[in-house]
Amino acid sequence: MVRAYVLIQTDAGRAADVVEHVRHAPGIGEVAAVTGPYDVIAQIEAADVAVLGRTVLDSVQSAPGVVRTLTCPITSL
Amino acid sequence: MVRAYVLIQTDAGRAADVVEHVRHAPGIGEVAAVTGPYDVIAQIEAADVAVLGRTVLDSVQSAPGVVRTLTCPITSL
Amino acid sequence: MVRAYVLIQTDAGRAADVVEHVRHAPGIGEVAAVTGPYDVIAQIEAADVAVLGRTVLDSVQSAPGVVRTLTCPITSL
Amino acid sequence: MVRAYVLIQTDAGRAADVVEHVRHAPGIGEVAAVTGPYDVIAQIEAADVAVLGRTVLDSVQSAPGVVRTLTCPITSL
Amino acid sequence: MVRAYVLIQTDAGRAADVVEHVRHAPGIGEVAAVTGPYDVIAQIEAADVAVLGRTVLDSVQSAPGVVRTLTCPITSL
Amino acid sequence: MVRAYVLIQTDAGRAADVVEHVRHAPGIGEVAAVTGPYDVIAQIEAADVAVLGRTVLDSVQSAPGVVRTLTCPITSL
Amino acid sequence: MVRAYVLIQTDAGRAADVVEHVRHAPGIGEVAAVTGPYDVIAQIEAADVAVLGRTVLDSVQSAPGVVRTLTCPITSL
Amino acid sequence: MVRAYVLIQTDAGRAADVVEHVRHAPGIGEVAAVTGPYDVIAQIEAADVAVLGRTVLDSVQSAPGVVRTLTCPITSL
Amino acid sequence: MVRAYVLIQTDAGRAADVVEHVRHAPGIGEVAAVTGPYDVIAQIEAADVAVLGRTVLDSVQSAPGVVRTLTCPITSL
Amino acid sequence: MVRAYVLIQTDAGRAADVVEHVRHAPGIGEVAAVTGPYDVIAQIEAADVAVLGRTVLDSVQSAPGVVRTLTCPITSL
Repeated sequence: MVRAYVLIQTDAGRAADVVEHVRHAPGIGEVAAVTGPYDVIAQIEAADVAVLGRTVLDSVQSAPGVVRTLTCPITSL
Repeated sequence: MVRAYVLIQTDAGRAADVVEHVRHAPGIGEVAAVTGPYDVIAQIEAADVAVLGRTVLDSVQSAPGVVRTLTCPITSL
Repeated sequence: MVRAYVLIQTDAGRAADVVEHVRHAPGIGEVAAVTGPYDVIAQIEAADVAVLGRTVLDSVQSAPGVVRTLTCPITSL
Repeated sequence: MVRAYVLIQTDAGRAADVVEHVRHAPGIGEVAAVTGPYDVIAQIEAADVAVLGRTVLDSVQSAPGVVRTLTCPITSL
Repeated sequence: MVRAYVLIQTDAGRAADVVEHVRHAPGIGEVAAVTGPYDVIAQIEAADVAVLGRTVLDSVQSAPGVVRTLTCPITSL
Repeated sequence: MVRAYVLIQTDAGRAADVVEHVRHAPGIGEVAAVTGPYDVIAQIEAADVAVLGRTVLDSVQSAPGVVRTLTCPITSL
Repeated sequence: MVRAYVLIQTDAGRAADVVEHVRHAPGIGEVAAVTGPYDVIAQIEAADVAVLGRTVLDSVQSAPGVVRTLTCPITSL
Repeated sequence: MVRAYVLIQTDAGRAADVVEHVRHAPGIGEVAAVTGPYDVIAQIEAADVAVLGRTVLDSVQSAPGVVRTLTCPITSL
Repeated sequence: MVRAYVLIQTDAGRAADVVEHVRHAPGIGEVAAVTGPYDVIAQIEAADVAVLGRTVLDSVQSAPGVVRTLTCPITSL
Repeated sequence: MVRAYVLIQTDAGRAADVVEHVRHAPGIGEVAAVTGPYDVIAQIEAADVAVLGRTVLDSVQSAPGVVRTLTCPITSL
């Protein structure tokens, strides 16, 4: 099992749309709009890093309004 | 109650338009054109952080000419 | 109630120490070592933004090895 | 009369000290700890830009823990 | 009276055009093409910061080929 | 199994020392000095992301002369 | 013989396509999708630096979705 | 006489075209494709800085595929 | 003859000292404290680029409190 | 044979010392002090990339006052 935080930058004014889109995508945990340099932070839980990479592509980067994502896999809790 | 400063970058030549647009939007306090890396700084006062996030989206990022915003919630005065 | 993600950069080789220190501090939720430009991501839940700011100062930035933190308050889930 | 926002970065863990120090310095308006890339935002009101520059030096940059300031004079409200 | 340096980035190949355009605009002093990260540096002298802000908008940012400007008001000589 | 590239910045003049130190540490694959913004790139293979994180801390960041590392876990080949 | 790592940034959502395209191009070794600021890392082996430069152009930068590449030639193993 | 290095960033895949175009332009010395953050480095020799600036505009920035140039005049050898 | 703008970053709180020091150094024209990412901007006039480079070293970078300078030679007025 | 440009950043005021030191080191071609974000640019010619990497370490990064170097191997002329 691998978990990651995905830090997401969106087009101006699109954060709520991205939250809504990503929230219902497969493999996604909590999705939150935040203030600061990033607009949305999503949590992902995947069977392994291969599934993790695929989930970022399919469930996050596919959302209209996403400009750039930075995936931060968790190495220890 | 939560307050925030919103640091705004605009397209070249659009700062005055953005000030004018944001100034009349709901939830907005003082709006100022400034010199330096940011073009406009707006103050927001909201009932809670959820309203704050919504105000940035609806009242600031919706203004034509806004390229990127950086919201800085105040944690203590 | 306000929640935030705190993105933490540490001195090289200090991420595990920071996780350990921050994990037991008051007001802190999940704390994870991550890969990428940030070294540790911590979750905070506080009564309001004033408490949030105080928790970042007292429970995160006080940890030896912390170089810089970027607090991202959640505006909507 | 000229007004400015001063965006302040502090050493980790020093934001509250900087707020306290700057708040009581001459020429300073509201001083707030904030989240995001900046740690403190101060407002200054000065007779002219010369006094403004002097106030940033004497009342803000003199505070222990201040690493870097970015002064943003207001050009229009 | 307030004076400022305006550091200007232009589209590749447009520096000479920008110099020519800005040089004849109202409120502008010396305008120079330079080498380095900035392409053009202009000097402005204005009655106050409000006029300064307006001059940057009307006389500099209006020039075709201007991508981004950074205005640096002079606080002391 | 998880693999990662670790992009390493070193103090000026320390790249060869870092290569030598990291090369003999446990869990490390190929280690190469490179030109460009990074000075050394190391490959790691670990049982899971927890071991990966621990290997970066123990086998890379412990090397004298390492200033900052950026770990890039491989999600698909 | 010269070898290099090529760090590749892609348009959001295009990493898998880029991996697929680059993998089958001439002169390319391992190609991996990764997390972090870069999206794909490719290894190249070439007869000399001239062939290396040509391979980056023809086999990597030609892939649709590639935004920017950073080639890091290996100077020692 | 003044000499300068011009560090050139190009669109992905255009470095060879830019080398070819710039190489035959007037006032240009050696032109090389390079690896790293810059794609091409050109040397210029000009009668004075005014000619230098004009050569960058006319002989380098005019080349299709050039995104940004950074001219570094030589002050001493 | 060659002229240049020198954009100067200083330690926090040292801008006035740097202005005072640089103002009286040989080869220096107007020296101004400014707001924004740079703290001081100095003008230099030199017989040629060799003298220019020497003046930056001897008259600007020698000033206590100077952290980094960015010299922008003027190529056309 | 492989050639490279080495872009060098130095401590403030140390560029001339670095030029002097690097100029007499083995494997070094032209060394020039320049204006802009880099302070010195050196040319290197080496038998292969391994020698190139060693020359940067031994002949450039060993010079007192060198803060950071960026080596740009030439891939085609």
